[in-house]
Amino acid sequence: MSKPRIYMHDVAPRDGFQNENVFISTDDKVAIIDALSECGFAKIEATSFTSPKAIPALRDAEEVMHRIKRQPGVEYTVLIPNARGAERALSCGIDEANLVMSVSETHNQANLRMTRDQSANQLSQIIETLADSSVAVNVSLSTAFGCPMEGNIAESEVLRLVEHFARQNVKRISLCDTTGMAYPSQVRHIARMAKASFPKVTFTFHFHNTRGLAQSNVLAAIDAGIDRFDASLGGLGGCPYAPGASGNACTEEVVHMLELEGFNTGVDLQKLVAVAARLPALVEHDIPSQILKAGHRLTKHPAPANAQSMGKAA
Amino acid sequence: MSKPRIYMHDVAPRDGFQNENVFISTDDKVAIIDALSECGFAKIEATSFTSPKAIPALRDAEEVMHRIKRQPGVEYTVLIPNARGAERALSCGIDEANLVMSVSETHNQANLRMTRDQSANQLSQIIETLADSSVAVNVSLSTAFGCPMEGNIAESEVLRLVEHFARQNVKRISLCDTTGMAYPSQVRHIARMAKASFPKVTFTFHFHNTRGLAQSNVLAAIDAGIDRFDASLGGLGGCPYAPGASGNACTEEVVHMLELEGFNTGVDLQKLVAVAARLPALVEHDIPSQILKAGHRLTKHPAPANAQSMGKAA
Repeated sequence: MSKPRIYMHDVAPRDGFQNENVFISTDDKVAIIDALSECGFAKIEATSFTSPKAIPALRDAEEVMHRIKRQPGVEYTVLIPNARGAERALSCGIDEANLVMSVSETHNQANLRMTRDQSANQLSQIIETLADSSVAVNVSLSTAFGCPMEGNIAESEVLRLVEHFARQNVKRISLCDTTGMAYPSQVRHIARMAKASFPKVTFTFHFHNTRGLAQSNVLAAIDAGIDRFDASLGGLGGCPYAPGASGNACTEEVVHMLELEGFNTGVDLQKLVAVAARLPALVEHDIPSQILKAGHRLTKHPAPANAQSMGKAA
Repeated sequence: MSKPRIYMHDVAPRDGFQNENVFISTDDKVAIIDALSECGFAKIEATSFTSPKAIPALRDAEEVMHRIKRQPGVEYTVLIPNARGAERALSCGIDEANLVMSVSETHNQANLRMTRDQSANQLSQIIETLADSSVAVNVSLSTAFGCPMEGNIAESEVLRLVEHFARQNVKRISLCDTTGMAYPSQVRHIARMAKASFPKVTFTFHFHNTRGLAQSNVLAAIDAGIDRFDASLGGLGGCPYAPGASGNACTEEVVHMLELEGFNTGVDLQKLVAVAARLPALVEHDIPSQILKAGHRLTKHPAPANAQSMGKAA
């Protein structure tokens, strides 16, 4: 029997690098994306065509997209906030446009400086712009599992926005746990509702590990039939509401877990960890990845010389 | 309908503090244990009656046990490695003796400097010593889900040791994932086997978060009918094989998750986080707890003034 397939997307080059204080050089960005392209991802979020003033960390979006080596079988997606971004992205050749708005009114205004209605209209314009192109559209709905300012988010609001975009023929929707508020039973419920209500939509779930629940949420979503996940190399990508807490679900932790659970992610864990190992030097700080520190569970270790003493470990 | 009950044990005063480089003063140990006693735990592992030379961090075991305020409803357990330790512990009044050996021959020799047969014999002597007392006996089986030196551990070896101790009338067994090698489907399988084979034994599962799987493993164990878990305040307690990786399952992360999942842990999360907040100053380093950093998922935040910019968060 073949193993069930789970499709992995790495978002570190966009969602991770944009959060770093140091500027990752274009050479390094291209090298990391090219290395990720060799790992077996279904999709890589390569950059963002946001205003270079708003996000200077990704001001080299065009150059990155022109220089990376596209790997057959890998989709290259980019974040596009507005019509200007769409034009820039189209000139580079992209496979998918990732459009973002929040389910939470308060978060949308704080994060995007627009009401949800304004955002939805802006996204509709981009969708129309791209309608005649070969570029796929994905809409990412932030704060789908909770808002750091509003608290709980009604599931009906999530489904209402999915329906809004499904009516515009959007076939790909990501439900994003922007600040790590999702929990397994909630994830299972939303996933079941979304799948049942919109059987033609391909859903991606995007978790953050802010409260230590990303891995459990991935398993809960799979339980409910979700088979596509965003995650970030090394766990890069923070949360402005929880300084020092973990960021995005860590790709190598998710892949390690799914491999053990008997899923086929298509991702080569050994290659992936080798790419993650390059991150601390680039971002100039320790990264949350437990797998980078501890290795695969079957990594063999010699007996520690003096670290252990009688009765110490349990 | 009442919520299903899960019993939580905090092991930080023993499994956490013994791993710290700084000596936690007896006053501070007593204060932390007394604060934990107010939180609603079923059990607290307060210290270890190991040789003070072997583990100087816990050289004040007697004084700690004499000075803590025992809370009705809380069991106070201590680690006991040998007959000498049992005598010392008995003189202090304890509710439970926690005896430890490894399922892995190699790990047992590295950690306890004895063969498994020698350890089993030594544990039998302690069990006999305690047979006439009112002290309960718990046997903790280390490396039950994998050994950092041997790799996989046969489930039959785990069950063989459970049977060995069950025959000696031991009614409490902890299966310990000493170095964070357990994964959910394995946990579910071992839990089912153990429960079905030894229905009279009360099992505790003890996970480490070394590879980011502690929370998922707790949920998998609950799936299989396990209702008692060790965890460590703040996630204290390391793994000598993975420097920098997370240690024990973090109590407040487990409690936060179980509360959201609809279980009654009896633990007051707010009080618990207040105790965890005292740890960084005591241990003189940052601690792994995500809940200490990020708070409960419904902690409300003001909109960040300048942290966010257009299209940044997903």
